Amino acid sequence: MLNGPQALPPQLDAADQALVDGVRARQLRPLAKTITLIESQRTDHQARAHAVLEALLPHTGGAMRVGISGVPGVGKSTFIEALGLYLIEQGLRVAVLAVDPSSSLTGGSILGDKTRMELLSQNPAAFIRPSPSAGSLGGVAEKTRETMLVCEAAGFDVIIVETVGVGQSETAVANMTDIFCLLQLPNAGDDLQGIKKGIMELADLVVVNKADIDVAATTRAQAQLKTALHMLRPASPNWSPPVLTLSALRKQGIADFWRTVCDYRATMSKSGEFDAKRRHQALAWMWDLIDAGLRARFRSHPQVRSELPELAEAVERGETTPSAAALRLLHHLN
Amino acid sequence: MLNGPQALPPQLDAADQALVDGVRARQLRPLAKTITLIESQRTDHQARAHAVLEALLPHTGGAMRVGISGVPGVGKSTFIEALGLYLIEQGLRVAVLAVDPSSSLTGGSILGDKTRMELLSQNPAAFIRPSPSAGSLGGVAEKTRETMLVCEAAGFDVIIVETVGVGQSETAVANMTDIFCLLQLPNAGDDLQGIKKGIMELADLVVVNKADIDVAATTRAQAQLKTALHMLRPASPNWSPPVLTLSALRKQGIADFWRTVCDYRATMSKSGEFDAKRRHQALAWMWDLIDAGLRARFRSHPQVRSELPELAEAVERGETTPSAAALRLLHHLN
Repeated sequence: MLNGPQALPPQLDAADQALVDGVRARQLRPLAKTITLIESQRTDHQARAHAVLEALLPHTGGAMRVGISGVPGVGKSTFIEALGLYLIEQGLRVAVLAVDPSSSLTGGSILGDKTRMELLSQNPAAFIRPSPSAGSLGGVAEKTRETMLVCEAAGFDVIIVETVGVGQSETAVANMTDIFCLLQLPNAGDDLQGIKKGIMELADLVVVNKADIDVAATTRAQAQLKTALHMLRPASPNWSPPVLTLSALRKQGIADFWRTVCDYRATMSKSGEFDAKRRHQALAWMWDLIDAGLRARFRSHPQVRSELPELAEAVERGETTPSAAALRLLHHLN
Repeated sequence: MLNGPQALPPQLDAADQALVDGVRARQLRPLAKTITLIESQRTDHQARAHAVLEALLPHTGGAMRVGISGVPGVGKSTFIEALGLYLIEQGLRVAVLAVDPSSSLTGGSILGDKTRMELLSQNPAAFIRPSPSAGSLGGVAEKTRETMLVCEAAGFDVIIVETVGVGQSETAVANMTDIFCLLQLPNAGDDLQGIKKGIMELADLVVVNKADIDVAATTRAQAQLKTALHMLRPASPNWSPPVLTLSALRKQGIADFWRTVCDYRATMSKSGEFDAKRRHQALAWMWDLIDAGLRARFRSHPQVRSELPELAEAVERGETTPSAAALRLLHHLN
């Protein structure tokens, strides 16, 4: 029988209760320590992290979750800093997180967040946390998602989740945020081919940055992006993703950007899609984790481990059917 | 230990050996009976179907596998009939299959295949098989994929797999064919919004049908589709999906279409991508089946069945985290 809806009932010792209280009191050290606990691979740390998260859960959900993606060089850091400072001027508190499974490999721009966003990182109303260190995308994204919840419990009003778009990280970010924004450069034409498959369709909002450099190119890029978006059936019948132009460097267009994000939230909330999307995201996340767990168990089964390589090769060579191989492997679980 | 690469060693009785021999001898009755065996839900039939398939496998892989998708009204039947008759004129044998999980629900156009393609269905060099009856998309697609293999063993040179694009069926068809062709109508502009998310990216080739009706609209649609495709990063560095225009009704452009398909095959074969794609498809298919099997086992576990609904609701309401719920449910498998 279930003993309440909690999956693992929080069992907080004094130290962890202090973390919970500290996060709720908006103190930065307990916040950082809680995130470190979440990011730890140690089993005992993970159990503690779950308990702390469960205790914080009733206080989550209050932030606007904004996903930002774009290739290196598009000006993400400059944009996020300008946006963050603008939001702080409006009296809001801002957290900046990142999903970048390769950060420790590339030596990565993300690791240098605090250098990149110097003014923002020094502002007491801002909290910047680099991506969890390299691992599977699923693991990195899961930790970022849980960090987002902790930041919400710490009273941040806006959570910006950034990705440089390695692998499937855009999908992971779109699946944990309320609005997914794609930054583009104003070099229209052939360069737009650089948009990764499927990314345009994730976008709730497209931004052409560096609009100050070449007005004509910006206008062309905007028109082309509008055409491309126009071809796609929008995710919501109530929202056609707009294409904005701005210059993060000159801080032009930032207010317009935020007004559009607020319009989106208002429109989606009115139709009920805002809450529905969050519910759907949480459930989909649970199933992703279940699928990953089932596959890990499957792969660790001794007979599966010994037979899988040979069977996979036989399937690739067309010597056995995918279904016969799948059945044989699944049979070992009986 | 593995006893050869076969997952389930073929154990053919005389009747099933007759099916194998009949299929190999290109006889239509054994072909149809084998497909019926594959489509059967009975456990004993499924075991026999697997054995027959394994025996036929060494003789598969020889056909060009062509996926065709497009909304109702785009003229798929007319196009497939025109294409099929053209190919038969060139001395080729053609099989037409379908993936349509909803066919028995809609009463469906697919069920009426033989009426729709009257000339083709009467031609001895053609074989038309409607979609397996309704079920999960995965099940329907799996049976169509195995039917495709049987048709290859029966010496068909071209297998056309059609879908009306219900749910995710386009992805399923793209994942079992060598080239995925998207049919479009020449009404440019707003109507292009009707293209489902993600479909454009699956297309190796886009065709504007009914080009005879309105030349100007056809030209506009072609230009718009080219722009849209241009925005997407192509799946292969060696192939940019072209946009053809034709009139299936007037049998104009059919030869051009087939020449393009042959160009595609030649280009992909030269780069090694043709075989690599087939190997990848087979392996991905195996993993899809494994994942589906693991999920089915998971869902049927007594404690998972009793707790899943309540936990899923708690996740949706934000009362527990996706990871805590997933861990708790997975724990029951220990």
